[in-house]
Amino acid sequence: MSDVQQMRNFAGDSGYEAWLAYPAVPSGNQRDQYLQWCKYVEADTGNTTIRAALTEWKRGMQSMLGLGVLEGQESGAPRIILGTWNEGNPLITTVFDEETIRSTGPEGFAIRCSREHQCIAIGASAPVGVLYGVFHLLRLMGTLADLEELDEVIRPVNGLRMINHWDNFDGSIERGYAGRSFLYENNRFIDEPERLRDYARLMSSTGINGISINNVNVHQQETLFISKEYLSDVARIADQFRDYGIRLFLSVNFAAPMHGGDLDTADPLDPQVRQWWRAKAAELYEAIPDFGGFIVKADSENRPGPFTYGRNHADGANMLAEALEPFGGLVIWRCFVYNCKQDWRDRKTDRARAAYDHFKPLDGQFKDNVILQIKNGPMDFQVREPVSPLFGALEKTNHLIEFQITQEYTGQQRHLCYLVPQWKEILEFDTYAKGEGSPVKRVVDGSLWGNRCSGMAAVTNVGRDVNWTGHLLAQANLYGYGRLSWDPELSAEAIASEWTALTFGSNPDAARIVIAMLMDSWNIYESYTAPLGVGWMVNPEHHYGPNVDGYEYSQWGTYHFADHQGIGVDRTLNTGTGYSGQYMGLNAERYDSVESCPDELLLFFHHVPYTHVLHSGKTVIQHIYDTHFEGAEQAAELVNRWSSLKGRIADSLYDQVAERLKGQAVHAKEWRDQINTYFYRKSGIEDMQQRTIY
Amino acid sequence: MSDVQQMRNFAGDSGYEAWLAYPAVPSGNQRDQYLQWCKYVEADTGNTTIRAALTEWKRGMQSMLGLGVLEGQESGAPRIILGTWNEGNPLITTVFDEETIRSTGPEGFAIRCSREHQCIAIGASAPVGVLYGVFHLLRLMGTLADLEELDEVIRPVNGLRMINHWDNFDGSIERGYAGRSFLYENNRFIDEPERLRDYARLMSSTGINGISINNVNVHQQETLFISKEYLSDVARIADQFRDYGIRLFLSVNFAAPMHGGDLDTADPLDPQVRQWWRAKAAELYEAIPDFGGFIVKADSENRPGPFTYGRNHADGANMLAEALEPFGGLVIWRCFVYNCKQDWRDRKTDRARAAYDHFKPLDGQFKDNVILQIKNGPMDFQVREPVSPLFGALEKTNHLIEFQITQEYTGQQRHLCYLVPQWKEILEFDTYAKGEGSPVKRVVDGSLWGNRCSGMAAVTNVGRDVNWTGHLLAQANLYGYGRLSWDPELSAEAIASEWTALTFGSNPDAARIVIAMLMDSWNIYESYTAPLGVGWMVNPEHHYGPNVDGYEYSQWGTYHFADHQGIGVDRTLNTGTGYSGQYMGLNAERYDSVESCPDELLLFFHHVPYTHVLHSGKTVIQHIYDTHFEGAEQAAELVNRWSSLKGRIADSLYDQVAERLKGQAVHAKEWRDQINTYFYRKSGIEDMQQRTIY
Repeated sequence: MSDVQQMRNFAGDSGYEAWLAYPAVPSGNQRDQYLQWCKYVEADTGNTTIRAALTEWKRGMQSMLGLGVLEGQESGAPRIILGTWNEGNPLITTVFDEETIRSTGPEGFAIRCSREHQCIAIGASAPVGVLYGVFHLLRLMGTLADLEELDEVIRPVNGLRMINHWDNFDGSIERGYAGRSFLYENNRFIDEPERLRDYARLMSSTGINGISINNVNVHQQETLFISKEYLSDVARIADQFRDYGIRLFLSVNFAAPMHGGDLDTADPLDPQVRQWWRAKAAELYEAIPDFGGFIVKADSENRPGPFTYGRNHADGANMLAEALEPFGGLVIWRCFVYNCKQDWRDRKTDRARAAYDHFKPLDGQFKDNVILQIKNGPMDFQVREPVSPLFGALEKTNHLIEFQITQEYTGQQRHLCYLVPQWKEILEFDTYAKGEGSPVKRVVDGSLWGNRCSGMAAVTNVGRDVNWTGHLLAQANLYGYGRLSWDPELSAEAIASEWTALTFGSNPDAARIVIAMLMDSWNIYESYTAPLGVGWMVNPEHHYGPNVDGYEYSQWGTYHFADHQGIGVDRTLNTGTGYSGQYMGLNAERYDSVESCPDELLLFFHHVPYTHVLHSGKTVIQHIYDTHFEGAEQAAELVNRWSSLKGRIADSLYDQVAERLKGQAVHAKEWRDQINTYFYRKSGIEDMQQRTIY
Repeated sequence: MSDVQQMRNFAGDSGYEAWLAYPAVPSGNQRDQYLQWCKYVEADTGNTTIRAALTEWKRGMQSMLGLGVLEGQESGAPRIILGTWNEGNPLITTVFDEETIRSTGPEGFAIRCSREHQCIAIGASAPVGVLYGVFHLLRLMGTLADLEELDEVIRPVNGLRMINHWDNFDGSIERGYAGRSFLYENNRFIDEPERLRDYARLMSSTGINGISINNVNVHQQETLFISKEYLSDVARIADQFRDYGIRLFLSVNFAAPMHGGDLDTADPLDPQVRQWWRAKAAELYEAIPDFGGFIVKADSENRPGPFTYGRNHADGANMLAEALEPFGGLVIWRCFVYNCKQDWRDRKTDRARAAYDHFKPLDGQFKDNVILQIKNGPMDFQVREPVSPLFGALEKTNHLIEFQITQEYTGQQRHLCYLVPQWKEILEFDTYAKGEGSPVKRVVDGSLWGNRCSGMAAVTNVGRDVNWTGHLLAQANLYGYGRLSWDPELSAEAIASEWTALTFGSNPDAARIVIAMLMDSWNIYESYTAPLGVGWMVNPEHHYGPNVDGYEYSQWGTYHFADHQGIGVDRTLNTGTGYSGQYMGLNAERYDSVESCPDELLLFFHHVPYTHVLHSGKTVIQHIYDTHFEGAEQAAELVNRWSSLKGRIADSLYDQVAERLKGQAVHAKEWRDQINTYFYRKSGIEDMQQRTIY
């Protein structure tokens, strides 16, 4: 029995099946309804993606209803019909009207329950739409929805819905907290097609349509992924992804042409270099006809790039774009570019400014198949930072927002931190780019500026751990990211609710507890860690655990400037780095003024005395003390809240989480005491409540 | 050509020959005198150690005088005579009187220039004494001494003169800063007999007579060094060492009997365990008849030990001692035992107390072939700490002092830090154990309490770097440790002077500069790093570079408790941890009182306000600012001082050091700015001289 088979035998018990565990639907009206409609299915099976949809459907029915679905029509009996407009069952085009058929778009689907035709039909332009429709229907049933009024067209809001792996060929994962890579080990591709297929199922079920499979820091060996030596291995993964509507992307080394000694330059304006990449693209598309394109981290954190040759980012990106263009490939160029050799004594240079300062001047200079990938905030995935001012500022350039699902700075999957509320807050943020009502989500989906390519990318949190994410509840972040990339209008709570039902089954009392824990968790984590948007109070390198001065005297541009009187970074126009001026409209004024700056970002924008009074009415120092005492208490309370689920969900799932929560409670106290002690020792200001500070 | 041969071809140029480079003696009276006496040599060559001495002598003469020495007597011509009392040239016992012959002891030698017998004779009880005598004579000539009045008996003051390697079998070196191990790579013994022999020559020439070849943290693979699998490899090294009077020791894993599954306990009182070690000892001595014995780090920093079985250190050490006793082997049991899982909130537990608290109560319970190895200070080789109060307190127990040649906390061989002055200060420290005049050196050499075994051990600083120590000037620490272990009365300056002449040749002007730089370096390093005995303001784990809070919130028992008002650890009797009470006589009072505590240890013993006035007349805070500005300036000045040597010593040697000094100057500024900024921000007190603090 393979590892994967063993894991699957645990099914819901190990967490391996995740949100595709398909828990049994409890007896009752809904189950009766489902049994009535689902006994039969009709589908074209000439396409591998539709076959995948059919297989998924059968698996779901077996698991949720104990039903061995029959294919083909039992005359007159209710049934499920799956198909595309062009090649499907003719009934498909009968069930739906013309306008519906025209409106589904390349990846969307229509779903309708027709009493007249005695079917629930899922129709789409392309097979992947049908697959998405099946996942949708399964999700509806997993959340006990009523199927008989179904009549809707569902399309993804974002064109690109990407996952970035930071897996290295040696099997390590940069910022991975769920074991080693399931793609590579010891500089070899792992041959576990079943696990890979299950991964593709999970991703596709949330709407993901692009996955880059290697770290953006492309090391020596990984540079060869685009060479003949490894292309067949890469193509094998692409084949698996293809069935699930996912295009494979590769991170590439900008200096790749020099790597094997082919050329002695990587200058993007050198004709030989351009030719090298064109030839490489041709090779790639021969092996992988639907290859997605390249992700590039260039001139950032010591990676090579066009700066070496006196060229700019547009020169670099356009050169690659030109090579991929004939094949429909994309260049995803990361904007995470800043001076990582900064001097902490220098208060003029501001890392927060860097992405905007680098890329805003290049707006309009990129080719149409280049997409800039912009981290959600100006720093680096802190528990709290403002939205990057680049969103809204690039009027003529395709771009993606980049989130981080893996919890690098948010507890490393040892702490519970449901990130969807953070992402929602960012997506709803009004950039004022076209006046009021220009939220990030409209920038990101391309509608604000009319971008051809746009969407979301995120660094994933998966590894070889049986439950994929280490912390079982961290699956909710992976699930939630996919769902949000499909439809940013979904609320964080709705996503939590879906995920909980799909993972643990439908027990409304238990679900309420899980959902509330998820919803509270980001605020809890923030409260016992980083106050008021300050960030970076973590141990260097691995980024786990408290260390107030951990990044204070470093080269990374990450400072809080705490002294005995106050703390924070002055990023205002008049006395600071001027970063606040990168924002548009009301945002610039709001952040620039210490009066109007929101509390949660105060220390990001202003250096204030510990005695400064917040909008909350508390002083900064008292806020630090209070949030840290309360946060650690709330973390301890999570243990109790979870313990009320004992016996109401599978023990093995219960135990996994219980153990992590206990660790979190202990570590939250460490955070509390170190942060409070640091600021108490530095400020000398007593806690008004006289609690123990060391 | 082997690596070693290549290196040797550089001779003095690469630093590989170190203090055995034998630079040419310049023409003049001394050279004429040497040429007169040294043309001929007579020696027994039936013993490998005497053959080694003869070879060394010839090498020296060739290099220093360009002389191809002739063996055997040219009738009546002046000559060198080498031999032991029993088997040597009969002339040996004629040149020296009875009393001299009786007084040389097992390792000492007599040396005399006799005009009557037209010879310079070196006589000794044992071949190794002859070898030491030859190294002595070569050193005299290297320092241009007059040979014609020679008439002395020279004996080592300390019985054990040990070097500890912390090399791991995988080739890494714990706290190694001169490249990887030259003993092991990739879990194999390196087969480079020539390098090993050169290493033995270097060590023997300074007087070292014992070397432990593996890390005291004995990992999985190294546990097997005492098994048949590796014993022949170990024996091969012992064979090389033997010719140079060096006994080989091994660090062992206390849980070794359980390692191969032989036993399921390592309880020192279990008869089977005792039998296992007895059998193991027999195996060892069959392979290595002069095997030195075991080094044991037990119940320390997560190493196994007798505590697991409810036994104490004496139980553990005596069990091993019993096994080695029949063969004359020793058990060297380290006293570096403390709670390494401390809570930083707990101000009662004091790591400084640990060695004394653990071992003082066991005084008298150890077998006669057990030697406790005590680190020089109570913490861990900081740039400044008090002398361990265990020295003088163990009246009935053999012990060694442990120094650290490798510059873990003292600049990692990237900064210049000549440590002999530190060691001298420690050795001269009066313990008051038998009233005034009970210095550490008399405890360590065994004379104070009449110990059978005693002496010094030190963690070495060598690796595969061509010049052995990375920083060329760090050779002076290796050389100096050996010389000091032989004769603690030598001054730090005299040792520096010897080393400089032997390494760079005799240029008095150049020598003055090098010696002065060496002599100033410890104070310079201290001044820009750790003020007033505070310690531990370094980056965690690797211990390089400033980080004031690096060990403040850790589990290692290493705190300074700096707040906005003051800094330091209260270790007094009345209000502190009581550590000061572990000292005897005047020391206890002197350290316990904030008035009498010496400035350089003030913060080790007392928590004082930044405004506390030192004996120097400065406040603590102004002292911090001043020493850091001055220290960084002095570090920069080292570059200039060295540059005056350009052209006066070999370029390749000059360049090696110049490069390191430049790096040191830059890094010293980083220390200066981080430390000053930290304390300025925390205290809010201005520098009286208004220099730039950030």
